[in-house]
Amino acid sequence: MLEKKLYVNALYDFYHSLLTEKQRKYMDLYYVDDFSLGEIAENFGVSRQAVYDNLKRTETLLDDFESHLHLYEKYTERSSRLEELRALLDKEPFSKQQAIEMIEGIENLD
Amino acid sequence: MLEKKLYVNALYDFYHSLLTEKQRKYMDLYYVDDFSLGEIAENFGVSRQAVYDNLKRTETLLDDFESHLHLYEKYTERSSRLEELRALLDKEPFSKQQAIEMIEGIENLD
Repeated sequence: MLEKKLYVNALYDFYHSLLTEKQRKYMDLYYVDDFSLGEIAENFGVSRQAVYDNLKRTETLLDDFESHLHLYEKYTERSSRLEELRALLDKEPFSKQQAIEMIEGIENLD
Repeated sequence: MLEKKLYVNALYDFYHSLLTEKQRKYMDLYYVDDFSLGEIAENFGVSRQAVYDNLKRTETLLDDFESHLHLYEKYTERSSRLEELRALLDKEPFSKQQAIEMIEGIENLD
């Protein structure tokens, strides 16, 4: 559950600008500020179910954006390769040819 | 004009998966296959103006995606920094500290 929350949070980081203000409102409260469904419902004078449904729809939308653009997936892959490159440079001596191939690999991720 | 076409083409590369099939149809013909407005209009039995309007709307949408997600802008910036990193590694000797700072800079672009 916590893992899922972190994943949705990551997708939200990448795609929040494509959501409407209304969609962002509940997402911010639930995923960023960590309020409970009950607290959000009470605050807006709506049912817990209404908050839940709204969040579910937005999550589906975020999954949809990711399935089309893969920004989070690419980010994860690029970060791990940049880390590998950095680790390679810390070796003494290191293969310059290998470093250049790693840079090319990162370029080709886009 | 050619420059603008290249720019729209680049945006289309990044965001085509967010467009509908109908929107992609004219874009593919005009921007990828390089048909003229007149040729596309004739092929689909519609007016040249209809093709133009359709393309214009899609271009506005692509600009809108870019203004929200900046994928093309980030790609350009990342590419140029990766090139700089590669050029740095080709120097003899080169500063490892500088290379690591460049890697960190690239990581922070996301």
